[in-house]
Amino acid sequence: MEKERVILGIDPGTNILGYSIIEQKGKETSLLKMDVIVLGTKDELSTKMKMLFDKITEIIDIFKPDILAIEAPFFGKNVQSMLKLGRAQGICIAAAFSRSIPFVEYSPRKIKQSITGNGAASKEQVANMLQRIFKFEAIPSYLDATDALAVAVCHSYQKEDLLVSDSSAKKTSSKKSSWASFVSQNPDRVK
Amino acid sequence: MEKERVILGIDPGTNILGYSIIEQKGKETSLLKMDVIVLGTKDELSTKMKMLFDKITEIIDIFKPDILAIEAPFFGKNVQSMLKLGRAQGICIAAAFSRSIPFVEYSPRKIKQSITGNGAASKEQVANMLQRIFKFEAIPSYLDATDALAVAVCHSYQKEDLLVSDSSAKKTSSKKSSWASFVSQNPDRVK
Repeated sequence: MEKERVILGIDPGTNILGYSIIEQKGKETSLLKMDVIVLGTKDELSTKMKMLFDKITEIIDIFKPDILAIEAPFFGKNVQSMLKLGRAQGICIAAAFSRSIPFVEYSPRKIKQSITGNGAASKEQVANMLQRIFKFEAIPSYLDATDALAVAVCHSYQKEDLLVSDSSAKKTSSKKSSWASFVSQNPDRVK
Repeated sequence: MEKERVILGIDPGTNILGYSIIEQKGKETSLLKMDVIVLGTKDELSTKMKMLFDKITEIIDIFKPDILAIEAPFFGKNVQSMLKLGRAQGICIAAAFSRSIPFVEYSPRKIKQSITGNGAASKEQVANMLQRIFKFEAIPSYLDATDALAVAVCHSYQKEDLLVSDSSAKKTSSKKSSWASFVSQNPDRVK
């Protein structure tokens, strides 16, 4: 029996950070909020970090999620981007910790596979699939928002609140939790 | 007139993180604590991050620092290291934010220059100079601890609590705040 839970999904970025909140009640999942936080490119680092921390804690205080599901940064960018991404991710994770909320991390490939059944799907394909599931009117202009929804939905498909680290994320990405297997297990959720 | 203040210095690392607490009363500065936090290499990412967040908030709750001075990671490492460093830095900064404490960041070069008068000084030279200032018996086996003390001392030499970002750190690193200028301004503190 699945319990009721609220999941905060975050796609960390250096300038734009996507977030979403979904509520899962048994096999029904509803979208409570999906948006982006725009971090000014001109602001001082300290101002940006403070703004991000305050915004995430505010979202947590409003929606009271049970868990934070966060997208693991994709390796291959330059060192400066990775530092910034890591810092943004650290701020979000610590904001969750400051409210005693655990986090779970998923690789981009695992997320795409969960939503579309294809680990190499484009952001647009992920967004289109999410639009079909939640029936929101228009796809947001920033796909960071749908990416954040994707990680929350990916977590909602997991049977347990596994705390997945970088290394185990790679291992688990081959597990059967694709869109196809989700459809077969939850025919009533797909319309 | 300089005010009394407690400074928490942190040298973020992926496996070993140095920290120090100094108390500044007028021109007198005393060392309250200097140590390292060892993050197990085998632990899950989530366990490490939680342990780091809990430990930093505990230190803050015990010593009640007015500000966190943190060393900016040195660019040039690989992308994976930068991500981990950024995440560790983000966790520390957010731990400070969770207790309403601001942070200030200094480049490695700026810190070395402040302590030894030479921006390219070795870790050992920095440690030796700090040992002369604070007269601690033995230099810690992990130089991450003295590096953390160095960033706190670097901040204590600043006239104001400037919030220095990555970009302005570069600009201010040429400012006159070397050990030589410190000695000339504070002859009574050098014995």
